[in-house]
Amino acid sequence: MRVIILGGDGYLGWPTAMRFAALGHEVMVVDNYLRRNIAQETCSEALMPNPNLTERVRIFEEISRYKIRVEIGDCCDFSFIEKVFAGFQPKAVVHYAEQPSAPYSMIGYTEALKTFNNNLNATFNVIWAVIQHCPNCHIIKLGTMGEYGTPNIDIEEGWLEIEHKGRKDKFLYPRQAGSLYHTTKVLDTDLLWFYVRLYGIRVTDLMQGPVYGLSTTEVNLDERLMPNFHYDDIFGTVVNRFLVQAVAGAPLTVYGRGGQTRGYLNLEDTLQCVELAMDSPAEAGQLRILNQFTEVFSVNELAEKVQMVGNRMGLKVQIKAIDNPRKEKEEHYYSVKHHGLLELGLQPHFMTDDIIAKMLEKVIRCKRNIDIRKIMPRVVWNK
Amino acid sequence: MRVIILGGDGYLGWPTAMRFAALGHEVMVVDNYLRRNIAQETCSEALMPNPNLTERVRIFEEISRYKIRVEIGDCCDFSFIEKVFAGFQPKAVVHYAEQPSAPYSMIGYTEALKTFNNNLNATFNVIWAVIQHCPNCHIIKLGTMGEYGTPNIDIEEGWLEIEHKGRKDKFLYPRQAGSLYHTTKVLDTDLLWFYVRLYGIRVTDLMQGPVYGLSTTEVNLDERLMPNFHYDDIFGTVVNRFLVQAVAGAPLTVYGRGGQTRGYLNLEDTLQCVELAMDSPAEAGQLRILNQFTEVFSVNELAEKVQMVGNRMGLKVQIKAIDNPRKEKEEHYYSVKHHGLLELGLQPHFMTDDIIAKMLEKVIRCKRNIDIRKIMPRVVWNK
Repeated sequence: MRVIILGGDGYLGWPTAMRFAALGHEVMVVDNYLRRNIAQETCSEALMPNPNLTERVRIFEEISRYKIRVEIGDCCDFSFIEKVFAGFQPKAVVHYAEQPSAPYSMIGYTEALKTFNNNLNATFNVIWAVIQHCPNCHIIKLGTMGEYGTPNIDIEEGWLEIEHKGRKDKFLYPRQAGSLYHTTKVLDTDLLWFYVRLYGIRVTDLMQGPVYGLSTTEVNLDERLMPNFHYDDIFGTVVNRFLVQAVAGAPLTVYGRGGQTRGYLNLEDTLQCVELAMDSPAEAGQLRILNQFTEVFSVNELAEKVQMVGNRMGLKVQIKAIDNPRKEKEEHYYSVKHHGLLELGLQPHFMTDDIIAKMLEKVIRCKRNIDIRKIMPRVVWNK
Repeated sequence: MRVIILGGDGYLGWPTAMRFAALGHEVMVVDNYLRRNIAQETCSEALMPNPNLTERVRIFEEISRYKIRVEIGDCCDFSFIEKVFAGFQPKAVVHYAEQPSAPYSMIGYTEALKTFNNNLNATFNVIWAVIQHCPNCHIIKLGTMGEYGTPNIDIEEGWLEIEHKGRKDKFLYPRQAGSLYHTTKVLDTDLLWFYVRLYGIRVTDLMQGPVYGLSTTEVNLDERLMPNFHYDDIFGTVVNRFLVQAVAGAPLTVYGRGGQTRGYLNLEDTLQCVELAMDSPAEAGQLRILNQFTEVFSVNELAEKVQMVGNRMGLKVQIKAIDNPRKEKEEHYYSVKHHGLLELGLQPHFMTDDIIAKMLEKVIRCKRNIDIRKIMPRVVWNK
């Protein structure tokens, strides 16, 4: 199947591209290096250097013989993106091409605007490239569990049937996100839903939780194929931050009370989910929404897990609460349905002690690259 | 009070500016003539020519002695808009500065993109100009009743308390709009709600229905102060279309079955509503949403009203159903709460026969300007 991976240089995009190529698909990756550029501008480079996308593709082909086509360009440039879609005629497009950092989106006007315009215009252009050049193409869009926020009612899978004053209707599950980045994904969903209704395009919107992990079958072929591992305050996830702090001998910094609870998943499972979504595409005129995570942890639970495994490895891990730079509930109700992907066949890889140990081992091998100054929060939500 | 009217050249912006000046406020109008330019590009000019904004302000001052400051510029240009806010230090801003045509937004990629970027970036910049230069300024944003669409449950005033599996929470009332233009207003609401929660700005979002009428105390001072009256398929409302068709001797064109039901209001009542909202501003950190209309009509009911009054004036009015160029429900449930503005003191001006007759008389005086080719739908939603 011909498939385009937008944001193919990213933490998820690159492993997805290799996996799909290994599965025998004709894969094209598209990226404009936005994340790399922002990382450089904000001193938030990844722990291990990653060859550029063209170079990674060359290395992967050398090792595996699987070919991947590369287009370096900006999804916000319609003349570029429509040429790509018109020429390649994809059956599916996986749209990861968004500025992915919540803290970056909260720095100030310039960063907020860049996030807003990049994310919204990329989605807008993908929709129109599909409408105009390959209307049957299945758009697999990466949303985020963060779109739902932390409401006081159970979170359903994208939709909610509401009974009100004796009448009923079904709506998008209400969304209210905690950063501008997450809000751009709420707006993406609104926009996709409009064009699905109006023009009958096919869309799967994956509400993904934070992803952890550095190992996939293809990544493991060669160190140079590793996806980017960020541990800084801009692009780093809480899991990565804890892993690096444990290795560096710095206390694991819990933001506030640490009861912030989210659904997490392994990188291997992201690849599975996207593959499962692609193999059973959404119908024409369907916006299919799937909640994409496998386990729920609070920040405190994650810290304790990393501490326990780290101590067992002799790392002497401390945990320390610091002021929360974000504006979020630190204790809250969190009960989320996530059946859709399991029904499609997802086989979860859970966050076992062994998985944590293996991630710690990889970080230990790069210990000399750690710059501890990158970790503490530089961006405060509510100035 | 110092107040900025963004989109001050518009059908609502200009009468609002004159009213506020007449009430003794210090008024600044801002416009970039986007609507005039689009009208020219699409052969959708208004029935009567309107002097440009600077000229209208001069005429109004000459007649009434009330001064209005004019800034011609684009709200999407932050360097322009922040200078305006920083310099003028408004206590309130009325944000009408959006591409207001649903059909225009549905022509194709270029028009959709222009609508999308203009409306979203204008709102984004207004939010940031307020955050950075006058955080206490009350943003009065014109939304639309069209954000709600036509759900099968009662429409509440902006918010909905949802009980689900024995737990409760309050959310933005679910929105799903019928055009890209209306969808940009849904996204505006999401964006405003995010920044209200995060930075504690004050926002009133007015969910307005279609407005009709050409008469306000200030407009009536001089013919040259008339707001723009559009009857074409791009900018014309259904009421204006029917008035012009009645005068031109063309049948009133009902789209489809004509059961499309909406809340309407008189131009005088828009001015009242905006004034009432300004006089009792939203709290810091409050997104106050008010449903802004006074009466509910179906398209068929409007056609019959215009026919009856027109016939009484000797116009021999026919009604004719034509294919619906839009994708919308032609028969649907519609029960909408609109208490907030009445509680603030709104005194409605209903659509009486006399009001319709007076509008018809104004159109008759411009009968020679009518270009009947502008009326029939050129834009089809679902190609």
